[in-house]
Amino acid sequence: MAAVPRSLILGIDPGIAVTGYGVIEVDGRTTRLLDSGAWKLPQSKPLPEKLHRLHDSISTLLRDHISPDISIEVAVEDFFVGHVRAAVTIGQARAMALLAAAQADLPVFLYSPLEVKQFVTSYGRGDKAQVQEMVRVLLGLAEAPQPADAADALAVAICHSLRRDSAAVLKGAR
Amino acid sequence: MAAVPRSLILGIDPGIAVTGYGVIEVDGRTTRLLDSGAWKLPQSKPLPEKLHRLHDSISTLLRDHISPDISIEVAVEDFFVGHVRAAVTIGQARAMALLAAAQADLPVFLYSPLEVKQFVTSYGRGDKAQVQEMVRVLLGLAEAPQPADAADALAVAICHSLRRDSAAVLKGAR
Repeated sequence: MAAVPRSLILGIDPGIAVTGYGVIEVDGRTTRLLDSGAWKLPQSKPLPEKLHRLHDSISTLLRDHISPDISIEVAVEDFFVGHVRAAVTIGQARAMALLAAAQADLPVFLYSPLEVKQFVTSYGRGDKAQVQEMVRVLLGLAEAPQPADAADALAVAICHSLRRDSAAVLKGAR
Repeated sequence: MAAVPRSLILGIDPGIAVTGYGVIEVDGRTTRLLDSGAWKLPQSKPLPEKLHRLHDSISTLLRDHISPDISIEVAVEDFFVGHVRAAVTIGQARAMALLAAAQADLPVFLYSPLEVKQFVTSYGRGDKAQVQEMVRVLLGLAEAPQPADAADALAVAICHSLRRDSAAVLKGAR
């Protein structure tokens, strides 16, 4: 019997203060939580050191999950470009995720917060609590993953798994 | 006779399209051009790959100049946070410079475009051509370094060398 094709999706919700991450395994039938958490960066450290630590953490996570017999895709939460300083700050954290994925030769996909909400809660106006509850239900967990940043990262990963299937359909229609 | 303490300053003017760099050697009396140039990133490539290439280029430059018998400091041009999209884009390029410096365990200093102009041309309203001319004169070159991005990066390095000395004075006065 041929092995069921499995793949991993690593969701990342980048931030300079806290970056959430979540790893799910999908095989076309089920979606399973493998790992989730959040990295908190010491606010007192200078920016270059924070970026260094964040890049190290993301690279280590990717390395821990890379294996020759499984395909991995990285889904990163894009951000709403509203407040300039916040956008620049989050952009730098996001750059660490994009860089680490490129260095590990993994495909990267970006999703806006709105897309994540739309795909995970089926309609765009889902609030944070609703997203967390849907993550809990979709992953068949007794409780929502903590902290909230980890649940957000898992929502990005789930969004990619749902979107990927419809994207494949769209691609075939081109 | 004791060796004259030398140090290197690596100036970086980050951008996603073009990043300029310049390396100067200072020993308290003279300032000498060691290396300068610019990395142009292919606009057709996806952002993660551009960041990867830029990070690689900066890391290689730092490694090429790191030596146990010389101190190195990295001076990076900060940016004017005006247009949001441009700020996010430049911020990501700048993050590659800050990360590469932190990974190489080198001290990093940020200078705004205004500070660079003020220190290099002695007054703030120096235009691009004036900055290039001052870089040429201060480094004792027959012609201004090309391209303009390389001259800009050298201006940041020179700004740091001038500012560093006055910063030391200020520090002593505290």
